[in-house]
Amino acid sequence: MVLLRSELGSVLRSNRLRQHRTLRDVSAAAKVSLGYLSEVERGQKEASSELLASICAALGTPLWTTLREVSDRLASHDGHWVPDTPDALFQDELAGVR
Amino acid sequence: MVLLRSELGSVLRSNRLRQHRTLRDVSAAAKVSLGYLSEVERGQKEASSELLASICAALGTPLWTTLREVSDRLASHDGHWVPDTPDALFQDELAGVR
Repeated sequence: MVLLRSELGSVLRSNRLRQHRTLRDVSAAAKVSLGYLSEVERGQKEASSELLASICAALGTPLWTTLREVSDRLASHDGHWVPDTPDALFQDELAGVR
Repeated sequence: MVLLRSELGSVLRSNRLRQHRTLRDVSAAAKVSLGYLSEVERGQKEASSELLASICAALGTPLWTTLREVSDRLASHDGHWVPDTPDALFQDELAGVR
């Protein structure tokens, strides 16, 4: 069974790496400890709603696009095809990819 | 600021009510206490990933469609238009609405 915290952590980590940012940088911006962020990214700790909001804000990616990406990944695990939606394009745009 | 647990609780509650099911029924099916489910639905408690998976299974709605609905609601709060996607149709179908 794929758990929310594992997939969420993976999405947060990939969003951070896409921006070439360190755990230290993002944890400081989000005002969470480096160890906490690291555990959340590895799916070892549940992020509270408040700290998840802080982490998303620090990454500059809205919570809804983060959850959308998590949902898409879980759908893919479930064998559902997920199109490259305008929202996904929007998220890449936010991250400066396109 | 709209928190994940508030919107998630609201989506879980609306999915349960759409099926005309009681807290007692769903909590028993999910093997969680009635009080816990009630608190999660009201956004007063963070659902652990494991118990969230159990609740979604008890409701017969995959975690990914639940998160998609949460994401859509948050996007709507953020002023982003979200179309009535095939996924949303799929979820209604699961709930026996169409």
